Amino acid sequence: MIEFADRINSMSKSAAVVRKLFGSMTDPEMISFGGGAPAKEVLPVEKVNEIASEVFTRDGRGVEALQYGPPVGITDLREAVIEHLLAPKNLNASTEEVMIVAGGLETMNLICELFINPGDVILVESPTFVHCVEIFEMFQAKCVGVMMDEDGMVIEDLERKIIEYKPKMLYTIPTFQNPTGKTLSTERRRAVAELGSKYDILVLEDDPYRELRYSGEDLPPIKAFDRTGNTVYANSFSKIFSPGSRLGFVYASKEIIDKLFDAKTATNSQTSGIAQVICAEFFKRGYFEENLALAKEIYRERRDALIACIDKYLPEGTKRVFPDGGLFTWVELPGEINTTELLEEAVKNKVAYVAGEGFFAGGEGLGKNCMRMSFGNVTPEQIEEGMKRLGKLINSKL
Amino acid sequence: MIEFADRINSMSKSAAVVRKLFGSMTDPEMISFGGGAPAKEVLPVEKVNEIASEVFTRDGRGVEALQYGPPVGITDLREAVIEHLLAPKNLNASTEEVMIVAGGLETMNLICELFINPGDVILVESPTFVHCVEIFEMFQAKCVGVMMDEDGMVIEDLERKIIEYKPKMLYTIPTFQNPTGKTLSTERRRAVAELGSKYDILVLEDDPYRELRYSGEDLPPIKAFDRTGNTVYANSFSKIFSPGSRLGFVYASKEIIDKLFDAKTATNSQTSGIAQVICAEFFKRGYFEENLALAKEIYRERRDALIACIDKYLPEGTKRVFPDGGLFTWVELPGEINTTELLEEAVKNKVAYVAGEGFFAGGEGLGKNCMRMSFGNVTPEQIEEGMKRLGKLINSKL
Repeated sequence: MIEFADRINSMSKSAAVVRKLFGSMTDPEMISFGGGAPAKEVLPVEKVNEIASEVFTRDGRGVEALQYGPPVGITDLREAVIEHLLAPKNLNASTEEVMIVAGGLETMNLICELFINPGDVILVESPTFVHCVEIFEMFQAKCVGVMMDEDGMVIEDLERKIIEYKPKMLYTIPTFQNPTGKTLSTERRRAVAELGSKYDILVLEDDPYRELRYSGEDLPPIKAFDRTGNTVYANSFSKIFSPGSRLGFVYASKEIIDKLFDAKTATNSQTSGIAQVICAEFFKRGYFEENLALAKEIYRERRDALIACIDKYLPEGTKRVFPDGGLFTWVELPGEINTTELLEEAVKNKVAYVAGEGFFAGGEGLGKNCMRMSFGNVTPEQIEEGMKRLGKLINSKL
Repeated sequence: MIEFADRINSMSKSAAVVRKLFGSMTDPEMISFGGGAPAKEVLPVEKVNEIASEVFTRDGRGVEALQYGPPVGITDLREAVIEHLLAPKNLNASTEEVMIVAGGLETMNLICELFINPGDVILVESPTFVHCVEIFEMFQAKCVGVMMDEDGMVIEDLERKIIEYKPKMLYTIPTFQNPTGKTLSTERRRAVAELGSKYDILVLEDDPYRELRYSGEDLPPIKAFDRTGNTVYANSFSKIFSPGSRLGFVYASKEIIDKLFDAKTATNSQTSGIAQVICAEFFKRGYFEENLALAKEIYRERRDALIACIDKYLPEGTKRVFPDGGLFTWVELPGEINTTELLEEAVKNKVAYVAGEGFFAGGEGLGKNCMRMSFGNVTPEQIEEGMKRLGKLINSKL
């Protein structure tokens, strides 16, 4: 058989293991705190139907949606991004600085195409989003973890590692982080942007959960403190419109967007026009704000239910993050419990989570007693029942 | 500014030049034989409207379309590929051997992710599809051209170059090739598959125009002669459904599909569910065959009109390919006419084409008197008028 490229051989198997496990979970009795899917109740099915029926006509936007379109995305969706998602955060972008991509993850891929050579170091939070590590490994980058405390990345550790490893890039999810649910403080956001400029490092700010805030006050993006163009702001429509649409956007300097145009063209040439036209209309018709209000109501209730159940059913000494938004909390169990080993038994008991150790780039043996729990796609009743099952199992191990 | 990766610096500028030229052509008076877009008359706008209205419901397929879906694509679209596009060509694929991708070009990107290291040689037809060369350059491959005659790639030259360059891959468009409109003969198809197996080279067969045949008999794909899994069959829904949908598929051995799963996940995780569900229904409802019959009727008339006008308006000594299908013909002008230089003047005269020399990988100075002409998106009336303008200009140069 033809030999695979080096980049394939350098990909670790951890992400694949996580995926395969969840691929097999089609049991309707299973209560899963794994995955990161939005609640099906917040998917705007009826709005999409209405929009598609009205705009997919020959005199309307049907030809635009079905014909070839611009690699950077259609203009009115880029304008919607600026008006509804950037301007409210005091980010003053022009359409030349915004590009539509095929889902939030594609930005990581395209940015790596632009900047990452084999052997380059990328700093990531420890723990971090495992699928992005998989992308970085595909580019044969070396991921190095930066310590976190309750306020997110520890700036002293970040600067120390910048000096030690001379990284090309820092990848960060500052708001309601995946997997921990933690949020980087405002002071640290400013510091991150300044370190990016000072050491000429690309700061890739991934912010897909930001709109889903249930408590506390909005914080400015890192990008708001960027004076040199070193920060690239990546976001997704998955949590605020539809993951299946596969739409995301990137806001960066015009110089970087111009190069992203070439990379996008040489990857898949453009993002689906069918999905883009529907999404643009979703914003134009004011459905984004309406749907977001519904989503926040549903998720707030689920977050509160999950946190209450963790405190009620998991053993004394359990630590958990109280997330002000997003879809995740991070649980640290007391004692010697290994969450990877426990998972198989949990699944037999019809409850699932994602084991913590897979989220640590480099696999330094951290997070063995941790788990990521998502409250996005489970009802309060399922949360109560699922946590009862999980609590019983964990308590039996102590 | 942060340094770009080596792969960005190694991309040539030819494709970018082609793109930018056509990006600026929004003049409604312009008659363009450039581009490769389908006729807007064959875009199934009404069918898509009907399907979206009926299936995007909460009890129907609305949640499936909007929620996360499988990286390999939804099952019924893979089944539609097997039933409507592979079985009729005697390709007996299973669903495990078929993957849905985000447009035909994405397959080239994913296959390069799997197999291409910097410095690897990829053989391509001379001339070949310029956007794929751009992808190959992004992976820092070296493209080497294989000679063509009226029956497509010359097998003796192919084998000679396999021995000389030890390539990792051969990229070929055997049917109604872009840019020439030429079709590889059956005997040569068999020979290509056998050479792939003999020398353990990946044969990437790109077949997006195959369904659009207006004369002559269907030929089997190269993949039909593959006994070792060395041939990968790539196709697109752009010419038979909608380019804006950004849908394509790949048919390969299960071993390769399993690895493509990882590459796809680490690129953009999955293809748009909104587009996939609509496309699957398009096949299920029998609209594919209906729409294809319409497309062939329209394109046959346009092909005949363009060929007649070339013979009528271009100077004696002009050579052109009579394509049995697809969207392109290839024109070789007599004398010293440089089509790249001529283009600027042509555009001033409100007629456009793509100059030939950009299609030769390596830029060996070939094709300077050639042009690619597309009849896809111009009416017979526009063809008559456009060729009159072009013929007048070219004759004035002799």
